[in-house]
Amino acid sequence: MALEKVLAAIDRNLESGVERLFSLLRIESISTDPAYAGKCRAAAEWLAKELAALGLDADVRSTKGHPMVVAHSKDDGAGPHVLFYGHYDVQPADPAELWETPAFEPQLKTVAGRKVIVGRGSADDKGQLMTFVEALRAFVESEGRIPLRVTILLEGEEETGSPSLAPFLEANRNELKADVAFVCDTDMWNDTTPAITTMLRGLLLEEVVIKAADRDLHSGLFGGAAINPIRVLSRIIASVHDEEGKITIPGFYEGAGELAPEIKAQWQSLDFSESKFLGEIGLGKPAGERGRHVLEQLWSRPTCDVNGIIGGYTGAGSKTVIPAQASAKFSFRLVGEQNPVAIREAFRAFVRKQLPADCKVEFLSHGASPALQLPLNSPYLTKARAALAAEWGVPAVLKGSGGSIPIVGNFKRDLGMDSLLIGFGVDDDRIHSPNEKYNLSSFHKGTRSWARLLDALRT
Amino acid sequence: MALEKVLAAIDRNLESGVERLFSLLRIESISTDPAYAGKCRAAAEWLAKELAALGLDADVRSTKGHPMVVAHSKDDGAGPHVLFYGHYDVQPADPAELWETPAFEPQLKTVAGRKVIVGRGSADDKGQLMTFVEALRAFVESEGRIPLRVTILLEGEEETGSPSLAPFLEANRNELKADVAFVCDTDMWNDTTPAITTMLRGLLLEEVVIKAADRDLHSGLFGGAAINPIRVLSRIIASVHDEEGKITIPGFYEGAGELAPEIKAQWQSLDFSESKFLGEIGLGKPAGERGRHVLEQLWSRPTCDVNGIIGGYTGAGSKTVIPAQASAKFSFRLVGEQNPVAIREAFRAFVRKQLPADCKVEFLSHGASPALQLPLNSPYLTKARAALAAEWGVPAVLKGSGGSIPIVGNFKRDLGMDSLLIGFGVDDDRIHSPNEKYNLSSFHKGTRSWARLLDALRT
Repeated sequence: MALEKVLAAIDRNLESGVERLFSLLRIESISTDPAYAGKCRAAAEWLAKELAALGLDADVRSTKGHPMVVAHSKDDGAGPHVLFYGHYDVQPADPAELWETPAFEPQLKTVAGRKVIVGRGSADDKGQLMTFVEALRAFVESEGRIPLRVTILLEGEEETGSPSLAPFLEANRNELKADVAFVCDTDMWNDTTPAITTMLRGLLLEEVVIKAADRDLHSGLFGGAAINPIRVLSRIIASVHDEEGKITIPGFYEGAGELAPEIKAQWQSLDFSESKFLGEIGLGKPAGERGRHVLEQLWSRPTCDVNGIIGGYTGAGSKTVIPAQASAKFSFRLVGEQNPVAIREAFRAFVRKQLPADCKVEFLSHGASPALQLPLNSPYLTKARAALAAEWGVPAVLKGSGGSIPIVGNFKRDLGMDSLLIGFGVDDDRIHSPNEKYNLSSFHKGTRSWARLLDALRT
Repeated sequence: MALEKVLAAIDRNLESGVERLFSLLRIESISTDPAYAGKCRAAAEWLAKELAALGLDADVRSTKGHPMVVAHSKDDGAGPHVLFYGHYDVQPADPAELWETPAFEPQLKTVAGRKVIVGRGSADDKGQLMTFVEALRAFVESEGRIPLRVTILLEGEEETGSPSLAPFLEANRNELKADVAFVCDTDMWNDTTPAITTMLRGLLLEEVVIKAADRDLHSGLFGGAAINPIRVLSRIIASVHDEEGKITIPGFYEGAGELAPEIKAQWQSLDFSESKFLGEIGLGKPAGERGRHVLEQLWSRPTCDVNGIIGGYTGAGSKTVIPAQASAKFSFRLVGEQNPVAIREAFRAFVRKQLPADCKVEFLSHGASPALQLPLNSPYLTKARAALAAEWGVPAVLKGSGGSIPIVGNFKRDLGMDSLLIGFGVDDDRIHSPNEKYNLSSFHKGTRSWARLLDALRT
C-alpha cells in the first residue's frame, strides 16, 4: 500500500530529519530584535531551498518586515488544494543564562524518559512546520511527487503580531487561496492524544464612558444630591450577569447555539482537572455560567468581561471628588453564529436603558469579529480526525480556543477559507521560555500524521 | 442703653473702618507663594498693632510657616470666654489681567445698586475678620473696655491647608481654650438673610482592593471561568444603595437621627431652587435619597460615594485582560451621632459578606471623623440667633455644611470647644477669583451683629 511506503520512508528518515531541523534551529531568526533581520532572512532562504529541493516552486518574498516563504507543488489537478501555514521566526533566548544548553545549539536529550529536541523554536514553530516538510519529503522519496496541490506559506513575523500578513494575503489572494488551510502552531491534548482546534471565539470590544456633571465636584458640597457616574457604571456592570452567571443583555445568546452532544461528551470525558487548571492562576472555583464544564465555559460559551475601569481619583490616599465621568472597557467573547454587530447594538441599548437622568453615555468601538467554527461535518475535519486517530490510536480531541488566533480570521475573511489547527506541541514545551523543547514523538508521529492526512485527502 | 451707644459708634466709624480695612487689604499677604512671606508677616504685625491699640494683649507668634496673631482682652472675669477665629492670608491675584481695578488697591464701588468693597481678601477673609475687630473698637470707644473675655486667633495659612494650626493649638491649648469659638469665614444665606452654620458632616474614607487571580489573565484563555475583580467590585458598589437611594449597610443609619422639625421647616421654606443649584453643574435632578429636600441631602443626611475606581487596562484602545485586582475609594459623609469606627467595621463586614470564592479583600483606611453638630439648645446659638435676627430683621438660617471645615474639628478635638460659624459673605463675592468683593452692608451690619452678640453674651 502506498501509505505504508510513505510512513516507512518517514521512519527511515527520522534521524536525518532531526538533523535538518537542527540546521534550521541553529539560525537565530529572532523577529522581535531588528539586529536579527539577516538571520530571519537566512531562515527563510534555508526553507525555500529545502522546499525547492523537494520539487516545489519556492521563493522568498520580501515584505516591509521579515520575508515570507511561499512554495507551490506542481498543480497536476489531483486532490484538493491545501494551504499549509507555519512560522520560522522565534522568540529571543533570554534569559540566556537559564538555558541548560545554548538556545541556538539544538540537542537531542532524554528528559524524564522522553526523547526531546531542545532549542529555541523547537516547538514554536520550526519543529512543527518541519513535520509537514518531512511528510512531503517522504511522498517525494517514495512516489516521486507530492500527491495533491499544496501551497506553503511560512511567515517570519508571528512573534511580533504578523504586521505584514494581512497586506500580503490581500496582495496575493489568488495565489494563496486554497480549499482549506492547515495551521500548524497549536498543541495536542497531551503527549499521546492529538487535538484539532475547530472553534475559535469571536471578540467584540466596546468602551463605555458615562458622563454626569460638567466638572468634577466636591463630594462634601454635592454628595447626596449629585449623581455619581462611578456608581452608575458599577450598576450597569453588575447588571450584565444574573446570579447564574448568564448574560442578561436581550438577544445576547441568539446564534450562540449549543455544543454538539458528541463534542460535549468528549470534553466531559477528558482528563481535565478544573482545580489544577484554576489552581495554577491562584483560583479554585469556576466563575462562569453555572452548570457548565470549564472547558465549555472557555471554548464554546460566550462571555462578557470588563478589561478595565477608571474614574475619579486613583492616586495615593484620598480625594473627596464626585467625578464628571467614569469609563469601562468591555469585551465579549462570541461563539457560533452570534452576530457581533447585533450584539453591539443590543449592548448599547441595554446600557442606554439603564442610564439615569442627567447621565450621558459615549461608546467607543475597539473592534468586532465573529466566532470561527469549522462545521463538524466538514470532509476535511472527518479525514483529519481519521488520520490522527489512526496514527495515535486514540481519537483527536476537538478543541476550542477561547482567544482569537488572527491568522484564522485572516484566512476566513481575506481568502474565504476554513482552517484546521493541527499541531503536536504539548503543555510543557516551554515555548517562549528557557529550555524550549519538542517531543521527538511529536516530531516523528506529527510527520506521520500529516502523511496520513495527505494520503486521505488525495483519495 | 449701652448697646445703642455701641451701635452708634459703629455707624459713626464706618468710613474710618473701611479705611482701616483698605490698609489691611493693601498688604499682599499671599500665603501660597513663598515670595510673599514677608507680606504675610506684615499683615500679622498690622493686625497685632491694631488689636494692641484696642487694649488687647496682642502678639505675632512664629510657626514653621506664616505666623499666628494671638490677642487676649483683659480677663476681668466677666461673661463667657470666647475665641474668635479668622485668617489674614489671601489667594494670589491671578489672573491679574481680569481685575477691573488692581487686586491690592482696594476700592469702594457701586455695582448693580450695591456698595461693595473690591479687592483681594475683601470677603475671604480680611473683611470678615475686621467686622469683629471693629465691633471691639466700638465697645472700647463707648465703654472703655471689651465687655467679656475675648481671645482672637488669626492664622496666615488657611489658603494652604493650615499646616501649622493643629500643632499650634496643641502647644497652646490652655491659652486658647475658651467656652465657645466663633469662626468667621462663611456666607450668609443671601444679601439680606444671615446664617449660622451649626452642622458639619463627618467623613469616613475607605479604600477597597479586591484581589482574585495571582496575575493578570488573558481574557480569551480564561474568560468565562476566571473570576473578574472589576465585576466583583462593581457588584459591591451597586449594592451599597437601594432603589430609593438609601444605604443598605446594616446599622449605617444608627445615630444619624432626623432633622429637628423646626430646621426642616426652615430649609423647606427657603428660597432655594434645586434646578438652579444643580443646573450650575450641568445636572437637573437630585440623585440622593428619594423624598428628601436637596438641602437635607447635602447638609443633614449621610452619604456614600465612590471617589475613584481603577482596575485592569485603562490606556487607549483595548487589551483583553482579566485583571488580578481592582480597587475603589469610598467616602462616607456622616451626620448626627453616627460613629465612624462602627460604620467602618459595618462596611468592611458588608464587603466581606459579598466576597465570592477565590477573592480576597484589602482595606485601606484614609481617615475617619465624626459629624459636628451644635445642639439646637446651646445658649450661644440661642443668643447668636437673637442677635442676628435683631440686626437683619429676619431669622438666621441654620445651615449645614456638606463638607468638613477642619478648624471646627480641631477646636472640637483639640480644645473641646463647639464652634458657631457666622460670616457675612454672599454667594457672588467671587472669593479666589478676580474682582473679589465684600458688600459694604456685610461689613457694616456684620460689625453690628457682633456687637449685638457680644452684648447678649455679657448679660
